[in-house]
Amino acid sequence: MPDSYVQLVLLLKRAHVLGTVSGLLGWDEQVFLPADSADLRAEQLALLAELDHEASAHPEIGRLLTELEQPAIQGGLDAAAQVVVRAARRDYDRVTKLPAAFVAEKARLCSAAYHAWADARTRSDFAAYAPFLEQHLALTRREATYLGWGERPYDYAIDQHDPGMDAARIGALFAELKQGLLPLVQQIAASPVRANPALLRGFPLAQQEVFLREVTAGLGFNYRRGRIDVSLHPFCSGSGEDIRMTTRFDPDSPLDSLFGSIHETGHGLYEQGLPLEHQGTPLGENAGMAVHESQSRLWENQVARGRAFWRHFEPRFRALFPGPLAGVSSEELYLAVNAVEPTLIRVESDEIHYNLHILLRFDIERRLFSGELAVADLPAAWNSLSQELLGLTPANDREGVLQDVHWSGGAFGYFPSYCLGNMMAAQLWTQVRSEHPALEEDFARGDFSRLLGWLRTRIHAQGRRLDARALVREVTGTELSPQPLLAYLRERYLPLYAK
Amino acid sequence: MPDSYVQLVLLLKRAHVLGTVSGLLGWDEQVFLPADSADLRAEQLALLAELDHEASAHPEIGRLLTELEQPAIQGGLDAAAQVVVRAARRDYDRVTKLPAAFVAEKARLCSAAYHAWADARTRSDFAAYAPFLEQHLALTRREATYLGWGERPYDYAIDQHDPGMDAARIGALFAELKQGLLPLVQQIAASPVRANPALLRGFPLAQQEVFLREVTAGLGFNYRRGRIDVSLHPFCSGSGEDIRMTTRFDPDSPLDSLFGSIHETGHGLYEQGLPLEHQGTPLGENAGMAVHESQSRLWENQVARGRAFWRHFEPRFRALFPGPLAGVSSEELYLAVNAVEPTLIRVESDEIHYNLHILLRFDIERRLFSGELAVADLPAAWNSLSQELLGLTPANDREGVLQDVHWSGGAFGYFPSYCLGNMMAAQLWTQVRSEHPALEEDFARGDFSRLLGWLRTRIHAQGRRLDARALVREVTGTELSPQPLLAYLRERYLPLYAK
Repeated sequence: MPDSYVQLVLLLKRAHVLGTVSGLLGWDEQVFLPADSADLRAEQLALLAELDHEASAHPEIGRLLTELEQPAIQGGLDAAAQVVVRAARRDYDRVTKLPAAFVAEKARLCSAAYHAWADARTRSDFAAYAPFLEQHLALTRREATYLGWGERPYDYAIDQHDPGMDAARIGALFAELKQGLLPLVQQIAASPVRANPALLRGFPLAQQEVFLREVTAGLGFNYRRGRIDVSLHPFCSGSGEDIRMTTRFDPDSPLDSLFGSIHETGHGLYEQGLPLEHQGTPLGENAGMAVHESQSRLWENQVARGRAFWRHFEPRFRALFPGPLAGVSSEELYLAVNAVEPTLIRVESDEIHYNLHILLRFDIERRLFSGELAVADLPAAWNSLSQELLGLTPANDREGVLQDVHWSGGAFGYFPSYCLGNMMAAQLWTQVRSEHPALEEDFARGDFSRLLGWLRTRIHAQGRRLDARALVREVTGTELSPQPLLAYLRERYLPLYAK
Repeated sequence: MPDSYVQLVLLLKRAHVLGTVSGLLGWDEQVFLPADSADLRAEQLALLAELDHEASAHPEIGRLLTELEQPAIQGGLDAAAQVVVRAARRDYDRVTKLPAAFVAEKARLCSAAYHAWADARTRSDFAAYAPFLEQHLALTRREATYLGWGERPYDYAIDQHDPGMDAARIGALFAELKQGLLPLVQQIAASPVRANPALLRGFPLAQQEVFLREVTAGLGFNYRRGRIDVSLHPFCSGSGEDIRMTTRFDPDSPLDSLFGSIHETGHGLYEQGLPLEHQGTPLGENAGMAVHESQSRLWENQVARGRAFWRHFEPRFRALFPGPLAGVSSEELYLAVNAVEPTLIRVESDEIHYNLHILLRFDIERRLFSGELAVADLPAAWNSLSQELLGLTPANDREGVLQDVHWSGGAFGYFPSYCLGNMMAAQLWTQVRSEHPALEEDFARGDFSRLLGWLRTRIHAQGRRLDARALVREVTGTELSPQPLLAYLRERYLPLYAK
């Protein structure tokens, strides 16, 4: 390797380490920060953001990249180093092409818009929030222009979260998905079978935590390089060397906590599986939000909502909660795990309707950016799509267009990742079962190591070498498609509901 | 204020904020860090140390100080600003006069010596540790020379922890203390009365935590700007805006956890009482280790080992632990709280013998630096002093010269602070009771606010304006002296033991 490559890697790792410090402070803020200590935390994070920007935008990185991009030198790099140079260039351009004044303006808007959103949501008052959304749209357009995507601001936004994705591709995938989903949803809605999650009440929190830790450790989460604690909203932060996940407990919703934790464990397993020796370089980074979500969803849905998983864990679940489960049959429990019911709120949705929530948001984002839809008309558009896709019309904006935090941070183009992740999870699931037909027999014995090993090799070990689409192509031999997701959903839910 | 002063304060605050980030990472390392995540934490802390050094040694700070130190300008500063300039100069010289190579050499030695000490302690093998101590002594001599203290390395070491203190003054104070302590110790040893802390067994941890939180909140610790968690060794870290204390629990030693927590609470109350608006400048910093220790000891000993404290808290203590306390009389409990028994281990010592442990260490440090004592002769010197002062000879170096971690970090001159803090605590205690004769009647009602208010005004609000001796003089009108400590110990312990 040329010396300039070695130098580049050192500078990238330095910026990475600084980023992990901010990550830890962010985690602590959500989990342990005393109520009145937020001012100091804000100062700490602002200073770290400044230092992180200095480290990531260091002119020496630019100089080294230019040197390494010379054809004579680049040609001599091995494939891995070429990935590093290409990804580092992408990141470097992003941090250096945005003027400092723009970055500061966006940071201020994010903070103001977050508070405006939280306030507007409480009062269900979209009009108070609308001006902030207008400004965020304008800033995203400017940002796209700085980065050379002036003609395609929404594609730019999507590409930030999922390199190589764009609105046209997503639009085609989602249209195909919708065509298959709506009949499935109707079929289930017409079924007389109904899950009853309300059967599950009075689960003591301490035992919930015991079960959750046994399950997540059983799936393969390495608690010697990670933790799980409690926060208001569950999340997974940190890097592979030190993953900090969170969950929350409610005695009357034990499945929420359990599946939330398994979801975050899927994210954590991915990060823990990224090559440790490449931490801090693109070879040790995740391949984008859709791939990340594919990992969390695969463990949460394909694995943990399946019969084989429960065959293994149900006895332990019953042993820990003999009282609350006394009157609940195995079939009732399994149906509660796989409850399907349309809801207005995305984060409370089952895994089928969840996709429809995303289709709604994608449609709105695309029309906002194309100019077909004005911000002022957002609530009406939302409500009409909600009726069309979910069969439900929000009674107010709080349970409609104001329900999600994302846009207040200017995070357009982020929602599609969730649904792309669902597609990819099902596609990987189809593939791994075709290679290992007896996989679920492992699960029934409490052994998840073959699945984890397969994901480690095929997905985690790749780092940022391939984008989501290329990764799917390489691992499954087919293009990313909604059909495996549709097939998986039919296979899981029709036997339960279409009796 | 001149603009250069405003600029200086901004730069000092920036370095302070960076320091608080390192502090949080250090806290997390002791409390929550997963077992195998230490490598990343080491990288994070090393990078922050580098950035902290850059911020603290910023040439602009030197330039601003030189400007502000010009007589014409300095004369125009108010008293507070003069404190800032004087203290900032002291700090700046310390970080800039030490060559980078020296700092790196010392950091390497600290790490190597720590591991050598931990290993030598396990095997009770002083000889393996001796070469590291030799190197630390040599480095401290060099360090003193860099800072202009070449002739007086031990005074330099003391001054690092307690500005304005030196070995001659400490020697005189300790000689006077020893003269009063030894007869008191003999009187108690001759008493037939014996405390029996072993009476206190089987205290459930959850209730211990409840009690400890009620007590520390009752003393005035602000849990909206601080926390207490569990770690292997108790400590108090953070700054006034966010204090992170720790404790540890043992069902058979409820008083260790309780008094350890009250001790850390004393440190925490001091930091929480430093002026918030001056955080990050010397006006918002503590006045050195002796003053810090005076605060922790005053709450731990003068307050929480007193009858008035127990008059208030004993009923609650009994209500939380009815079983374990069923056969324990109030007098037995109070005697257990004030158990006096010589022990070889400093950190297990009662508040009387504790001082003798410090006298021993001070005598040894002074002779090491004067050249009277060679490192090779340390164990023999230790054991002979131990017999003379404590009446006990260590069976091995593990329970003798190898028991403390301090020297492995090159922290010479630190031990005296503990005993100076004890003296100062008693002197403040004498003073506050002379001003408020009914103070302990407050305690008996569970009201500690008058004492805390007094400490807030007299000690905490001062920041680094005065050093320990000047602060004692200002607050009590007398010089720092061991007599109030001796008087307090006689008053508390003779009625208990000299029956």
